[in-house]
Amino acid sequence: MAVYTDVAAEDLADFLRNYDIGELLSYKGIAEGVENSNFLLHTSTGSFILTLYEKRVAQCDLPFFLGLMQHLATHGITCPQPVAGKGGEMLGVLAGRPTAIVNFLEGVWPRKPNAAHCAGVGHALAKMHLAGADFPISRANTLSVSGWRSLFDAAAPRADAVQSELCKLLGAELDHLEKYWPRSLPQGVIHADLFPDNVFFLGEKLSGLIDFYFACNDILSYDVAICLNAWCFEIDHAFNVTKARAFLSAYEKVRPLSGDERDALPLLARGAAMRFLLTRLVDWLDVPPGALVKPKDPLEYVRKLRFHQSVKNIGDYGVERAGSAA
Amino acid sequence: MAVYTDVAAEDLADFLRNYDIGELLSYKGIAEGVENSNFLLHTSTGSFILTLYEKRVAQCDLPFFLGLMQHLATHGITCPQPVAGKGGEMLGVLAGRPTAIVNFLEGVWPRKPNAAHCAGVGHALAKMHLAGADFPISRANTLSVSGWRSLFDAAAPRADAVQSELCKLLGAELDHLEKYWPRSLPQGVIHADLFPDNVFFLGEKLSGLIDFYFACNDILSYDVAICLNAWCFEIDHAFNVTKARAFLSAYEKVRPLSGDERDALPLLARGAAMRFLLTRLVDWLDVPPGALVKPKDPLEYVRKLRFHQSVKNIGDYGVERAGSAA
Repeated sequence: MAVYTDVAAEDLADFLRNYDIGELLSYKGIAEGVENSNFLLHTSTGSFILTLYEKRVAQCDLPFFLGLMQHLATHGITCPQPVAGKGGEMLGVLAGRPTAIVNFLEGVWPRKPNAAHCAGVGHALAKMHLAGADFPISRANTLSVSGWRSLFDAAAPRADAVQSELCKLLGAELDHLEKYWPRSLPQGVIHADLFPDNVFFLGEKLSGLIDFYFACNDILSYDVAICLNAWCFEIDHAFNVTKARAFLSAYEKVRPLSGDERDALPLLARGAAMRFLLTRLVDWLDVPPGALVKPKDPLEYVRKLRFHQSVKNIGDYGVERAGSAA
Repeated sequence: MAVYTDVAAEDLADFLRNYDIGELLSYKGIAEGVENSNFLLHTSTGSFILTLYEKRVAQCDLPFFLGLMQHLATHGITCPQPVAGKGGEMLGVLAGRPTAIVNFLEGVWPRKPNAAHCAGVGHALAKMHLAGADFPISRANTLSVSGWRSLFDAAAPRADAVQSELCKLLGAELDHLEKYWPRSLPQGVIHADLFPDNVFFLGEKLSGLIDFYFACNDILSYDVAICLNAWCFEIDHAFNVTKARAFLSAYEKVRPLSGDERDALPLLARGAAMRFLLTRLVDWLDVPPGALVKPKDPLEYVRKLRFHQSVKNIGDYGVERAGSAA
């Protein structure tokens, strides 16, 4: 949560003259997004999100992110849709930062997702994967298997201070993942960070997907694995097979997984656990003493990794091994 | 700016069942208010602000603050109006905190107020002073003259590290203020913190006063002096007599100052400068090295104090000495 840049009302009013979204009524810095400054705008025509991109987001990636949201929104996915300026451009400059306006999505994210929420996510994720198929820009995933070794190297010397023998566990797992990571599964645009706080609901009905700033091209079923970890475990980190079944079944109703994808899912889930374990561990070890922001607990993902290490096949995730695609 | 408390969507939906404001559509933690956690709510009936009162606000003062907003809103002042629960109560409990809902006011606060803005504030402040006359609850001002000595004592030992001879300046000024502070001027409910960020405008039309959490009973013209300091100086801290004339004239059109109030205004303005100088100085000296939040500069108020020390009478603030009340 963060608002890094203050925006003067006078400057914002000037900026908005380049858009056809009506008169500015109010704007509030909102405590969302850790990378950018976000404001909720009310204008005479509705509500919008104004985002000032801070240094941590590579500017060369912005056309990918904004173009993707535009593409998905026009292909039936409820996600923030960039508002073009009067000249057609999706990026402007405000307070010295690249700045975009997107429409505002109503909805709240569930702190205690149930099986109906998980089914909603499965359905939406599969639709997103299909809708992204003909998106013409691509972006490599720097946080996939090829990026994990350097994260491991950064965290390894102090990993055992977080949990005994953690360094050994991670080293062996990384060797395994690098050796067996699948190379020929279907690829496409993935969200790569579809955690509950990035999915809005009105009641149990999904009302929007947000935060595409980790989106990239990678194995589609790796995105499925990320969601499996993010949505189908309990607060105490125990796996919930009912939620997993709801999630995977809803996904497969829209985009059935191939036999190879289904076989690879336990390995992909180990990789997805590894990815969040490593970034959280690096953040955890990076925090200065006395900092106000508490980083996310990396050990949650150690539990998830160990669970997937014990999984024999997709049947352990609550769906038929044969699958609807078979 | 702060959101201290996370509120779960499920808990908020439960909480809202006690109100007749429709279905929850969305809520965002907003970067406003340094003392409380604030959320901007969208419901099927409109926009609202949800405030969770954190520890720094004395709970015994909440009936005063909420009652005052209610009183003023029903007496023609555009300020946040508390929404009563189904049982008529203005305070509930959410996430373990006393919690209130008020209606949302559209508007933005001007970073570069002009004379028209200053006139708007003068008009609204006078109306507020009149509207508060029959408000039945009272609250002492802990940050008036009787509270300054303890702030001075806290800051004095290190004051000269901020500016050379600051300790001596403040000590002499405090002696003077304590000796000559007026005891018989008209009192009433004052806002006590009506800085630009607490006044919303749509264009040049004032659309609302917010943040009544310093409101208290004190000398009405002391509130005028606080605004004179907050609104009528330039970014470089030079006094702007055009803005002061606009502000004071607009105030006096609604509530003419008495001869005694006009005579006292330079002294009250010195006191108002002293109050913000002292609290900013204490905050400045309190900040741990490396803190992310930069406190407000106390030296801005040293400049303002010195200006008012040089003022002979209200004529130096741009209005006729005789006054419209004479």
